[in-house]
Amino acid sequence: MSDSGRVEAFSDGVFAIAITLLVLEIKVPPGAGDDLWAALGHQWPSYAAYAVSFIVIGIMWANHHTVFGFIARVDRGLLFINLLLLMVVAALPWPTALLAEYLREDKASHVAAAVYSGFMVAHAATFQALWWWVTRTGHLFDERVDVPGARATRLRFALGSVVYPITVGLSFVSAPLTLAVHGVLAVYYGFNQLPVPTKDPQAGASRSAA
Amino acid sequence: MSDSGRVEAFSDGVFAIAITLLVLEIKVPPGAGDDLWAALGHQWPSYAAYAVSFIVIGIMWANHHTVFGFIARVDRGLLFINLLLLMVVAALPWPTALLAEYLREDKASHVAAAVYSGFMVAHAATFQALWWWVTRTGHLFDERVDVPGARATRLRFALGSVVYPITVGLSFVSAPLTLAVHGVLAVYYGFNQLPVPTKDPQAGASRSAA
Amino acid sequence: MSDSGRVEAFSDGVFAIAITLLVLEIKVPPGAGDDLWAALGHQWPSYAAYAVSFIVIGIMWANHHTVFGFIARVDRGLLFINLLLLMVVAALPWPTALLAEYLREDKASHVAAAVYSGFMVAHAATFQALWWWVTRTGHLFDERVDVPGARATRLRFALGSVVYPITVGLSFVSAPLTLAVHGVLAVYYGFNQLPVPTKDPQAGASRSAA
Amino acid sequence: MSDSGRVEAFSDGVFAIAITLLVLEIKVPPGAGDDLWAALGHQWPSYAAYAVSFIVIGIMWANHHTVFGFIARVDRGLLFINLLLLMVVAALPWPTALLAEYLREDKASHVAAAVYSGFMVAHAATFQALWWWVTRTGHLFDERVDVPGARATRLRFALGSVVYPITVGLSFVSAPLTLAVHGVLAVYYGFNQLPVPTKDPQAGASRSAA
Repeated sequence: MSDSGRVEAFSDGVFAIAITLLVLEIKVPPGAGDDLWAALGHQWPSYAAYAVSFIVIGIMWANHHTVFGFIARVDRGLLFINLLLLMVVAALPWPTALLAEYLREDKASHVAAAVYSGFMVAHAATFQALWWWVTRTGHLFDERVDVPGARATRLRFALGSVVYPITVGLSFVSAPLTLAVHGVLAVYYGFNQLPVPTKDPQAGASRSAA
Repeated sequence: MSDSGRVEAFSDGVFAIAITLLVLEIKVPPGAGDDLWAALGHQWPSYAAYAVSFIVIGIMWANHHTVFGFIARVDRGLLFINLLLLMVVAALPWPTALLAEYLREDKASHVAAAVYSGFMVAHAATFQALWWWVTRTGHLFDERVDVPGARATRLRFALGSVVYPITVGLSFVSAPLTLAVHGVLAVYYGFNQLPVPTKDPQAGASRSAA
Repeated sequence: MSDSGRVEAFSDGVFAIAITLLVLEIKVPPGAGDDLWAALGHQWPSYAAYAVSFIVIGIMWANHHTVFGFIARVDRGLLFINLLLLMVVAALPWPTALLAEYLREDKASHVAAAVYSGFMVAHAATFQALWWWVTRTGHLFDERVDVPGARATRLRFALGSVVYPITVGLSFVSAPLTLAVHGVLAVYYGFNQLPVPTKDPQAGASRSAA
Repeated sequence: MSDSGRVEAFSDGVFAIAITLLVLEIKVPPGAGDDLWAALGHQWPSYAAYAVSFIVIGIMWANHHTVFGFIARVDRGLLFINLLLLMVVAALPWPTALLAEYLREDKASHVAAAVYSGFMVAHAATFQALWWWVTRTGHLFDERVDVPGARATRLRFALGSVVYPITVGLSFVSAPLTLAVHGVLAVYYGFNQLPVPTKDPQAGASRSAA
């Protein structure tokens, strides 16, 4: 297995564990007695936060995996940036639980949503940093990649992340709306990822379609 | 590793983590003093729910793995359907804990069993959706698969899932019986999975036997 | 990857997760104030149970992995027996926490140790069942294995497990001693595993040495 | 997959799970009402401990992976030393939670920091033991390694670990400073690992750079 394969496998493990730990945030309502339906219904923010964060981490994984599919070598800088990215991903069960806990409150819901959105900003920032690092010299890419073409996508990649700071602002308007927007954004980026430019466009297309 | 291999490895990770997190649902009885046997015996619903859910997730994994064994390419649609399927699987520790908590109660046990059965319906639905998606065009299969034959199995696959909505109804008769039925169904489907039709029947048989 | 490789990877995942979840059993002493050393010292059963269970699961994994290294094909029977084995392994954080909680008590410590030992009996039983299943016909082995030789080891394998029921009895003498014995047994079996007989004895030796 | 590959994959799994379980240490502040910002701010030791331990485990993984990249065979001794190393790594969420809980207290913070530093000493000790074991005869290395050269690095490897016992002493000066030093040390060792000497220096350089 190539070195980048090993780093990717480790990263995949962290993504898979973080996404599965999300369920620990959903509690079993204690002592619900004869009105379990009502007690379960009362917990809707937990289900909503679980579903959105699951989709978000799933798409984060898919995009991380697409980029790493073009990386052949990992230097210490990339290892470190990737570790920061994983630090954000592995932390996501926490803002998810925070938002679920406070989604129905008034003032606190805005704070929780802002923290949640802040984690999305942090993920976008580390993902951008990773992309800048690998496109900087291009020697980490495998030979299929059109390096100048990849470097030229930096700005468009960055523009795609501008939306995340806006969700921090939106948090102070409505926390449930902010959560819904993060779900929609994840699905949107899941189906509309920028392709990695390749020398043979066919290879890039088939790869980015995965 | 092929793209489908990577998605399968990620899915395997989620299955393995979800199945292992089930144990967190079984509590250590606090302050049992001199009567630990009684305190442990009192927790039998936790052991029953653990055992059934373990078998259920294990068989879900085996069947998911059999289908993915014939998939060579993963498009964004399949990635998304698979993510929904994993969202249901990763959530299973929660209905398991819910059912264990309320299995001995009267009215609440029916609610908990209905929720548990609802998750099985949701899993069957996402698994059907996955099968419909890959048999739709067949271009995601590897070359061994008999695509028209695979498409022809859709209805029989779907009929096999009709039993799950029935367990939702059964939940209002008896929660322990419903749990037992889910265990029996898992074992039954574990040993009686529909084989994926292949051009060379030998290959299909040897594969589906695994 | 061969089918048996996939089942082995899934099993490895369950072993790795179960062994890592053991740490959740060790609590942070709440509100220890100025006497944190004493509060930490008071928790020694948690550390002892963690260390022993970690070694136990680690050796279980090593032996499982040695046997699977000779298995080339997985049928539904083996899949199911392996699932039962994993059900026991994945549950081990629970008897570990139970024993840690009650190790210092009088009567309850014996109950907790008996439950812990019972899980070791259950693991030995499923491991024996797995070995009987694969040596029954031998067609699941890869071609290196001396099948009649492997079948002839059944009794010696079984005798090696007789010690576990004895630890159930020992539990009613002393729970800390029982825990220590399980640690010693794990290390002993870690270094003295029966080799899988091969046609070329060299291959068997080099494999079982791993 | 070679035997060492399997042990490495199992180890990678433990590292990935331990690093991801760190998040369970960060609590959702209960009942924060209208002052969620303050309640979140009050938890800063949890965030600091999470970040430092995440980097620490990440770098531990990278260095473990670099050494295992040169190991071709695993004997029972190496398996056992590696299991002890993993026992320390998998336990790290506990001292992390302990330090986060007591970082703001007076006397208890020193105890918690000393325990945390003690785990770093234990990790360094097991890592040294692993290195001594594999350089002892050298027959476990793959053929690229310059075995006498590798053996000659033992003392320098050991000297690099002298700093960890010093952090135990530092714990009694300042717990927050000790935590910060562990973060700095991890980053330092992440970028300044001793290379494994190889017969072809080029191969060693490219590998240790990963």
